[in-house]
Amino acid sequence: MKHFITVSDYTQQELNMLISRASEMKAKRAQPSLKGKNLVLLFFNSSLRTRTSFELAMQQLEGNVVTLNAGGDTWKLEIEEGVVMDGDKAEHIKDAARVLGRYADAIGIRAFAKGNDWEEDKKDPIIDAFVRYSGASVINMESSLYHPNQVLADIMTIQERYGKNLRGLPVTLTWANHPNPLPMAVPNSFLLACAIFGMDIRFVRPSGYDLDEDIMNRAHELAGESGGTISVTDDFKEGFRGSKVVYPKSWGSLRFYGKKDEEREYRKGLGRWMVDEEKMKLTDGAVFMHCLPVRRGVVVTDSVLDSERCLTYEEAENRLHAQKAVLTHILGEAP
Amino acid sequence: MKHFITVSDYTQQELNMLISRASEMKAKRAQPSLKGKNLVLLFFNSSLRTRTSFELAMQQLEGNVVTLNAGGDTWKLEIEEGVVMDGDKAEHIKDAARVLGRYADAIGIRAFAKGNDWEEDKKDPIIDAFVRYSGASVINMESSLYHPNQVLADIMTIQERYGKNLRGLPVTLTWANHPNPLPMAVPNSFLLACAIFGMDIRFVRPSGYDLDEDIMNRAHELAGESGGTISVTDDFKEGFRGSKVVYPKSWGSLRFYGKKDEEREYRKGLGRWMVDEEKMKLTDGAVFMHCLPVRRGVVVTDSVLDSERCLTYEEAENRLHAQKAVLTHILGEAP
Amino acid sequence: MKHFITVSDYTQQELNMLISRASEMKAKRAQPSLKGKNLVLLFFNSSLRTRTSFELAMQQLEGNVVTLNAGGDTWKLEIEEGVVMDGDKAEHIKDAARVLGRYADAIGIRAFAKGNDWEEDKKDPIIDAFVRYSGASVINMESSLYHPNQVLADIMTIQERYGKNLRGLPVTLTWANHPNPLPMAVPNSFLLACAIFGMDIRFVRPSGYDLDEDIMNRAHELAGESGGTISVTDDFKEGFRGSKVVYPKSWGSLRFYGKKDEEREYRKGLGRWMVDEEKMKLTDGAVFMHCLPVRRGVVVTDSVLDSERCLTYEEAENRLHAQKAVLTHILGEAP
Repeated sequence: MKHFITVSDYTQQELNMLISRASEMKAKRAQPSLKGKNLVLLFFNSSLRTRTSFELAMQQLEGNVVTLNAGGDTWKLEIEEGVVMDGDKAEHIKDAARVLGRYADAIGIRAFAKGNDWEEDKKDPIIDAFVRYSGASVINMESSLYHPNQVLADIMTIQERYGKNLRGLPVTLTWANHPNPLPMAVPNSFLLACAIFGMDIRFVRPSGYDLDEDIMNRAHELAGESGGTISVTDDFKEGFRGSKVVYPKSWGSLRFYGKKDEEREYRKGLGRWMVDEEKMKLTDGAVFMHCLPVRRGVVVTDSVLDSERCLTYEEAENRLHAQKAVLTHILGEAP
Repeated sequence: MKHFITVSDYTQQELNMLISRASEMKAKRAQPSLKGKNLVLLFFNSSLRTRTSFELAMQQLEGNVVTLNAGGDTWKLEIEEGVVMDGDKAEHIKDAARVLGRYADAIGIRAFAKGNDWEEDKKDPIIDAFVRYSGASVINMESSLYHPNQVLADIMTIQERYGKNLRGLPVTLTWANHPNPLPMAVPNSFLLACAIFGMDIRFVRPSGYDLDEDIMNRAHELAGESGGTISVTDDFKEGFRGSKVVYPKSWGSLRFYGKKDEEREYRKGLGRWMVDEEKMKLTDGAVFMHCLPVRRGVVVTDSVLDSERCLTYEEAENRLHAQKAVLTHILGEAP
Repeated sequence: MKHFITVSDYTQQELNMLISRASEMKAKRAQPSLKGKNLVLLFFNSSLRTRTSFELAMQQLEGNVVTLNAGGDTWKLEIEEGVVMDGDKAEHIKDAARVLGRYADAIGIRAFAKGNDWEEDKKDPIIDAFVRYSGASVINMESSLYHPNQVLADIMTIQERYGKNLRGLPVTLTWANHPNPLPMAVPNSFLLACAIFGMDIRFVRPSGYDLDEDIMNRAHELAGESGGTISVTDDFKEGFRGSKVVYPKSWGSLRFYGKKDEEREYRKGLGRWMVDEEKMKLTDGAVFMHCLPVRRGVVVTDSVLDSERCLTYEEAENRLHAQKAVLTHILGEAP
């Protein structure tokens, strides 16, 4: 049973194989078929790119696809084990997982962190339940911890610009301001992916915005294997100088996890954490990347986003091709 | 024009034919095509299994399928005849039915009982409007009165375990506790289906939880024709002893219909109406069945649901195959 | 890049070509394929006919189609340019447009007028953003200003009754009462379409319910070219006498735009603006048409709507065929 939960379950070689397959499909040199295969997409949160690109991916591959809004189209799901279900949740997630596993060859899940208790969110309980109970392949469409399809498309986009060998490429992953404390899935996964590919990662964030220790340790481990480096700083010059890729993302502080009002207060001093022309000038002609959606005038200025060095729409397009590679890898015939 | 509103519109022989067709497709020995046929699914209520299995069924049959959430995706629908429509309902159901009938060869409808006035709910006004006005085949995806696709899958599941001839098979249909007064469609349809197949039905429920008199009369009539029996009791020993199938379901009391608070008060004494190991021990090694979603720790204990004798996920899977049989019966070429 | 924003971007000859193509498909004499083409449907508002008929149209044409509810399935979209996005809107419409344009060959958009500020609504900001930024063909599924797919189906329906040459056909477009101030897209587009086809248009409305001046001027211009006429009146006899088509529609007053309470008060005197048998008797055996959804007992009496001269369901059916013609025109191979 193949899953796609985090890029760190895959080697650099395996990820390169997926990206090659994606590039073949993008160039229309390959048209694999998943005729007769069944994909269910289950969304606990909103989506534009992920929903559209996964639905189209499966349709283009001639497979069957059903999309469900959990809690909207379906019943509310209980996640706790052994609980007496006399509240508002009509179905236990393990029963939903077992049932959907009877219909689907693969199940895509979007389930963001809830943002109240990091130890709880860190368990990725919904992804975990589907892996344990569904008996189907599970594809992570963004969980508390990871967003592997996003960063697979990101690596593909970086390779299109800088070539297949990314070892030593200077990349800036920087925290950005935002009105809300967002999940950490994207920075976690981007950091891990860059580490797998041996890049020279500059992780730039203000005090209080470190990522989870286990993620950082895993990233250092992967960088060690691939010949990459990770430096951490809160200094813009240090973080942006000489960089080839600027990748901003906002996320919530682990220090203030579950305390939105306190964090909002703290962030009042962080308005300068926005990517603008001045920061871009520090780089070595870096491209600008973002997973989208992005807050204009908060995370990045209009002028940077609307400039020629912006690759965000290319990243979004590559989501489609990368996901077709993931789907054929998971559901296709063995070669 | 073929409809699928209630199993009691079909004979045992016809239902067996549908189940045989479903089994052929489950075993991948038959792959009929509904290419060019159009199915619209209209949901007035939430769904997990029904939505997923119907969408996939039609896709696997190569037909076209569109799913609508009534009142969400679409306009709110007026049901009353001859009313001046100056309220919040923008479209009359007869106009919606006529229009959808122009697009669809078959229309699947989910429309639960509203739970305020049984005489009103008993008319199944939404199903009725689509049968009268749409000019298309109507498939009942659970109405106030019936849930025929569920019990067709249930009978298929029972036959897989006990063979095609179910005459005299001891089956326990038992009321179960629940925080809310639920619709009666499932117990109504399961009772009718078991009666059509001549089973030895034990209907176990506390005082106040009898089903509608017309349903009971029809079930007795069908049991008379098929050689089945129906006994009614509130005694667990009498109801479970020697049984081969335990099928719990919660539903609202006709005595308290529309009086939720009174019913909630009354139910405080009914917590022991849960299927547990003790009740299962009374049976003759019965299998456990449930239509899902199910409240763990309220309707059934975790240990029974997670045991090997539990067939609920098999029932859920068989929904897909049974519905493909229904769809090809209704929309396919005459043989 | 071909768009379908308003019928007034097309000539009578081009619209006739589309209708001929639609008729061919309706009669099953043509079955074009859009295999491999990708359509995204983005709904900012509810829909029954439009959603169902577009989804089925694309499936019948063997193309791929994804449907999104903006603000429900997806993020809330910012429309203003140059704004600091620190509110509740997570994504700018130009970014959503650019991204969807990477996935889709054509994008269908439903975005009603907001009803607060006519000068703002008149810009059709959402349609405009997708035309400017998506790089894909844009299909208007009803905007502030236009509903071209509706009136293309309407013209097709009128031609089925009265023949291809509609020059001089007496048609009554009449305001009707309604509890809410509705958008003007349908009357705008119907007026323009009738003008393109040279009909003898009677525009009947109470004081305060004129359409936008630019729309009226454009209609007069088109009528001048085609040999049609437009007369405006608030007199039922003048408006209905001798007419062959009665087409009522309610819309909000430009005089009271954004002032719902004032308009509601004003409308108390307008209850007689309902199409009934009496008004129909003034006509020359006119057919009755409406885009649906329609308020029975408010816009039209049950007896007129349920009569044989009512073509509303034919109009609804023709939506499917007309849209297949639009899709193949926009996405198909050049002949």
